[in-house]
Amino acid sequence: MTHAKWRLLPDRYFDPDPAQRRIARQLYESVADLPIISPHGHVDPSLFADENTTFGTPAELFIIPDHYVFRMVYSHGVPLEALGVPKGTGEQDHRKIWQTFADHFYLFRGTPTGVWLAFMLQVVMGVEIKLSGATAQVIYDQLEETLASPEMRPRAMFDRFGIEVLCTTDFAADSLCHHQAIRASDWGGDIRPTFRPDDVIHLLRPNWRSNLDAVSDCTGIEIISYRTLIQALEERRAFFQAMGAVATDSDGTTLSTGELSPTEADRIFQRALKAEATAEDAARFFGHMLMESARMSIEDGLVMQVHFGSYRNHNQPLYDRLGPDMGCDIPIQAEFTRNLRELLNKYGNDPRLTFVAFTLDESTYSRELAPLAGHYPALKVGPAWWFHDSINGMTRYRQQVIETAGLYNTVGFIDDTRSFPSIPARHDLSRRVDANWIAGLVVRGIVDMEDGHEMILDTAYRLAKRAYGFSCDGKGGPFPSGE
Amino acid sequence: MTHAKWRLLPDRYFDPDPAQRRIARQLYESVADLPIISPHGHVDPSLFADENTTFGTPAELFIIPDHYVFRMVYSHGVPLEALGVPKGTGEQDHRKIWQTFADHFYLFRGTPTGVWLAFMLQVVMGVEIKLSGATAQVIYDQLEETLASPEMRPRAMFDRFGIEVLCTTDFAADSLCHHQAIRASDWGGDIRPTFRPDDVIHLLRPNWRSNLDAVSDCTGIEIISYRTLIQALEERRAFFQAMGAVATDSDGTTLSTGELSPTEADRIFQRALKAEATAEDAARFFGHMLMESARMSIEDGLVMQVHFGSYRNHNQPLYDRLGPDMGCDIPIQAEFTRNLRELLNKYGNDPRLTFVAFTLDESTYSRELAPLAGHYPALKVGPAWWFHDSINGMTRYRQQVIETAGLYNTVGFIDDTRSFPSIPARHDLSRRVDANWIAGLVVRGIVDMEDGHEMILDTAYRLAKRAYGFSCDGKGGPFPSGE
Amino acid sequence: MTHAKWRLLPDRYFDPDPAQRRIARQLYESVADLPIISPHGHVDPSLFADENTTFGTPAELFIIPDHYVFRMVYSHGVPLEALGVPKGTGEQDHRKIWQTFADHFYLFRGTPTGVWLAFMLQVVMGVEIKLSGATAQVIYDQLEETLASPEMRPRAMFDRFGIEVLCTTDFAADSLCHHQAIRASDWGGDIRPTFRPDDVIHLLRPNWRSNLDAVSDCTGIEIISYRTLIQALEERRAFFQAMGAVATDSDGTTLSTGELSPTEADRIFQRALKAEATAEDAARFFGHMLMESARMSIEDGLVMQVHFGSYRNHNQPLYDRLGPDMGCDIPIQAEFTRNLRELLNKYGNDPRLTFVAFTLDESTYSRELAPLAGHYPALKVGPAWWFHDSINGMTRYRQQVIETAGLYNTVGFIDDTRSFPSIPARHDLSRRVDANWIAGLVVRGIVDMEDGHEMILDTAYRLAKRAYGFSCDGKGGPFPSGE
Repeated sequence: MTHAKWRLLPDRYFDPDPAQRRIARQLYESVADLPIISPHGHVDPSLFADENTTFGTPAELFIIPDHYVFRMVYSHGVPLEALGVPKGTGEQDHRKIWQTFADHFYLFRGTPTGVWLAFMLQVVMGVEIKLSGATAQVIYDQLEETLASPEMRPRAMFDRFGIEVLCTTDFAADSLCHHQAIRASDWGGDIRPTFRPDDVIHLLRPNWRSNLDAVSDCTGIEIISYRTLIQALEERRAFFQAMGAVATDSDGTTLSTGELSPTEADRIFQRALKAEATAEDAARFFGHMLMESARMSIEDGLVMQVHFGSYRNHNQPLYDRLGPDMGCDIPIQAEFTRNLRELLNKYGNDPRLTFVAFTLDESTYSRELAPLAGHYPALKVGPAWWFHDSINGMTRYRQQVIETAGLYNTVGFIDDTRSFPSIPARHDLSRRVDANWIAGLVVRGIVDMEDGHEMILDTAYRLAKRAYGFSCDGKGGPFPSGE
Repeated sequence: MTHAKWRLLPDRYFDPDPAQRRIARQLYESVADLPIISPHGHVDPSLFADENTTFGTPAELFIIPDHYVFRMVYSHGVPLEALGVPKGTGEQDHRKIWQTFADHFYLFRGTPTGVWLAFMLQVVMGVEIKLSGATAQVIYDQLEETLASPEMRPRAMFDRFGIEVLCTTDFAADSLCHHQAIRASDWGGDIRPTFRPDDVIHLLRPNWRSNLDAVSDCTGIEIISYRTLIQALEERRAFFQAMGAVATDSDGTTLSTGELSPTEADRIFQRALKAEATAEDAARFFGHMLMESARMSIEDGLVMQVHFGSYRNHNQPLYDRLGPDMGCDIPIQAEFTRNLRELLNKYGNDPRLTFVAFTLDESTYSRELAPLAGHYPALKVGPAWWFHDSINGMTRYRQQVIETAGLYNTVGFIDDTRSFPSIPARHDLSRRVDANWIAGLVVRGIVDMEDGHEMILDTAYRLAKRAYGFSCDGKGGPFPSGE
Repeated sequence: MTHAKWRLLPDRYFDPDPAQRRIARQLYESVADLPIISPHGHVDPSLFADENTTFGTPAELFIIPDHYVFRMVYSHGVPLEALGVPKGTGEQDHRKIWQTFADHFYLFRGTPTGVWLAFMLQVVMGVEIKLSGATAQVIYDQLEETLASPEMRPRAMFDRFGIEVLCTTDFAADSLCHHQAIRASDWGGDIRPTFRPDDVIHLLRPNWRSNLDAVSDCTGIEIISYRTLIQALEERRAFFQAMGAVATDSDGTTLSTGELSPTEADRIFQRALKAEATAEDAARFFGHMLMESARMSIEDGLVMQVHFGSYRNHNQPLYDRLGPDMGCDIPIQAEFTRNLRELLNKYGNDPRLTFVAFTLDESTYSRELAPLAGHYPALKVGPAWWFHDSINGMTRYRQQVIETAGLYNTVGFIDDTRSFPSIPARHDLSRRVDANWIAGLVVRGIVDMEDGHEMILDTAYRLAKRAYGFSCDGKGGPFPSGE
């Protein structure tokens, strides 16, 4: 049986107009081979800790860890168990999982996941026939063979992808042992941790108390008060920074910022220790900790990232049965003008701070975030995030943010992925979409070609590098301050 | 006097780029002659109950029943009475009404109403000169003559339009006598009712009590409690289903869903019987009835439709004087992530349920509805509704919904019209806009032409047919379950 | 040293598609030389009071008074003092200010400010080399020389720009002495005041009491009660109208409208006199005064403008140090369906009223404002405002407002600028963007070329002229009623 060829178009994602397309191609080609800066994401550092680690089966690489993929198949009535999700449970025959996925591959028509998968299969894996139920098994055979080759191990892929720096996201009490192993190895890949204290600063998170104890343990500071919590966090930030971290991250479930007195903060903290904290306590405490995070960032130079507005684990019965990250985190409305005011009033005028705010509520782009970032020196608008990390999502972002914030109050592309082999797919896509956006400005006489060339270099490489203050000396180490 | 020709462009609504236009035309032509599936709308079934029924005068066909038309003329200071609205009141000279409308026809430039009217006049009625104050009377003459012909009766038009199935919207206590008459006739048109219980489940609706009594009367169940209400509704659903209904519909004025205990539900119901229910009672009761509606739909297989977020009869003095449907229903902000959580948690994981949610708040497309539909098996996003049933509105819908929800968590085009002759105009428009959208994906290399051909078939015909589970045997009868 | 030429493209801001571009150019050329109608803005009338007034240095013309410009430079960590802001403070060497601005000119890539500055420098000032740090001083030399010429004085520029009428914005107690001087002069420029009573109707504004006293003084009515306030305002409106005013304006910080009884209104007013009014008092009073404003407008024919939804002086420390208008007014969410209901129910059905509502929350365009304006005779949607007065902002406005409101429930372009020399830049931009929008409709067969020509005349000139009821007899004087 012969199958139709599957080929990415060379001019993919560009506008069809010949004049715009020609300029887009020219701009894209000028940055297509630049190294990848990946300042924020969720790749597992253990992949790189040992040179012999592999990605496992095609299902383990493409389906089981990727909530973008399994959510869509689930939405058509396929139980997650049939996809071997969560990892290690349910269906154990990975050929069967692959077949189920391939049978539903049509669901991804016109989605960014479909576009990334096409790139990963064709460019990263060398697949030349289109995935469908009919071709599932022959493609599985090829993938198994390909994944067995040494060039398909994570470290080799990292080098092949041209990644200059990759940041992971790590819990505050993480020993960073995988990062230590990478640094101790003779491999040159620059992989850095990011400090994420959410599991101790969101007072009502499951396992909050044991997480707190873990931070106590690894710092030797017994956290019995708000004061000792701050002390321990500062110590952990210093440790992360010594391990190459350039940034912190928080999940802004509650949106409001506001300062508590140390006494108030401690009173809430004591209630949390007694498991008596209310939802309002937790929200106020988190809002205060964002203020503290800004203060610490001004002191130690770590970029402060906050990802605002995801309602985690919306599907309670699914969460109760299978746990978090099951593809059911759903965005909520955001409000920044009032909610960030206290933080921005106190710390936003200080150019030593770089505060990158991400949102899932696109209605805030032009109404709130762009006007705020176009004024406060500290604030930068994070790129189109998660569901909006897509061709239309990025296009709306450019159209709604840049006119008011300016390009230079943004921080370039951030892939934010758990799926390591999707990284080149995502950067290729964003470079093409940006090249097309800038070409649209050039062909309309809004910027000239000279500016266009600067802008594509900025969006593809320089903005991220500058915003996160990366040193360029390979492996993580001390780095220049925020800006 | 000679008047300029009036001609719809063959490539209308397509992007001007020649490459995209060529593909759009090809895709459009592949579905242009497919039958029309109309699973939700507000056409009056009595039009088809008797083979000799006519549409009346041009004003009765195009102006008096169409709030899209008279609202715009009213917004320029013309009293509704001068347009013969509401039906049977005000100006009785229909030539005068037509003249007033034609004098204001320029108001519709660039609006979907303008586009539909051009199609109806040119394609359905054969008018070849452009409507304006100057041409009003000569066109009126022609329309009168045309409407007198037997081919212009509703049944003949239904056949000419190629409508495979048309669903009306009917009150829970409706005898469905017109549907009965259609089924009893020798005419083959497939027209089905839709079960809409709003007038008894919104406790504060005007005439709630008499509506309730009507349901009591037609079921023989004396509705004196919450329990008997449920019993009566279940019986009416069964009757509607026997008459061919495939779906229910509700007007989601309040947005929140949540379950009450039977005791709580009954307590509120008893207050309503005593005319003592509060606005909060009514909102909680309706939120509970949406839960019940989902439960019943899982049991009987009726598709559950909810149209969320219209503030009905915003213009109180106009409503007091002329009644409802005077063109002053205005959208309000919606919120689905929190408001639908209880319903989706309890019933959304069940693939037997098809729950189609419509919104007038486009900011929820990418933020809430698409992420929810891209996860929960039961939820589908209804198409661009009402004010957004337009070229730009549909385009925004495609751009904001599909990347996250996928095409296959939507239900195809729904015309939702009261104006029968606008049906082919609306389907022609949506098929063209979708063909152009898909052509845009093809020409950008996002999907290939093979997928493009599948997608246009889906948007134009198959998605609606599958979502609403239509049997294909002509007149309404038993039908397969929701999905 | 030679520098690259700097040239605006003749087809700038048009879509690249040749067919659309050709039509856009044709439509644009048909209105490019029409006079400018500027019914709302913030140009200082004193510029025109004396024929010998000049604009001062290049920094005084382009940087110091323009918050669009200095906010962006401030956002990159440059203190406002280094830009000589506020006027008369900080850096006094205007060459240095200009150099700092030029060093940061790249920040404006892709922004409307960048586009306006390019027009002002090239077309208004004759600069032919691109502004950058390297060319800053040579351009400064040229600008100094150019500004010294008599043709560069405000009155000469007004004539050169082809401004038919320009409205300023003036406090209720303003003596309008500059307007008087203009009228008394032999110069023919038509410059009119606009009545803005915000500083006395927002009860908690700084200096409310002294502003109130100023109104008392100029009317001779001692304002000791709500009743006398109304009396004084009515008298001032009559004075403004005698001086040529055609409109009022208010800054709608609170969004809700609602009528108080005279007793309630007076009770709040008495609390304000005793400096005891609460935030809620102020909001209710303002909501009531909007109702009163509508009533007065029906009586005297002044167009009622309200600009809704800016959070003024968001950056408190900056405000405390430097005062208002420092580039930190930030939009907030708006809601109109419920908030305007009371006003529209009472006065919105009266075609004698023209109520122009402006918003900074684009999510209300298609959801609320367009449906409301497409129904209520009195309501018109103001054009894309402030941050949205941009190529993408105007395009979104056209795409989201017109299909539902119709073009004829809008009021044409309004520049709303403080920067006099930006006026032709802004009108050139809006005429081009509108020509391109209409060309897009023509090339897609949505409107024909005949309608297209009418529409561009309307957007560029006629809608504003009609909505604001300008008489065409040169200098301000009595004028026809609102519509």
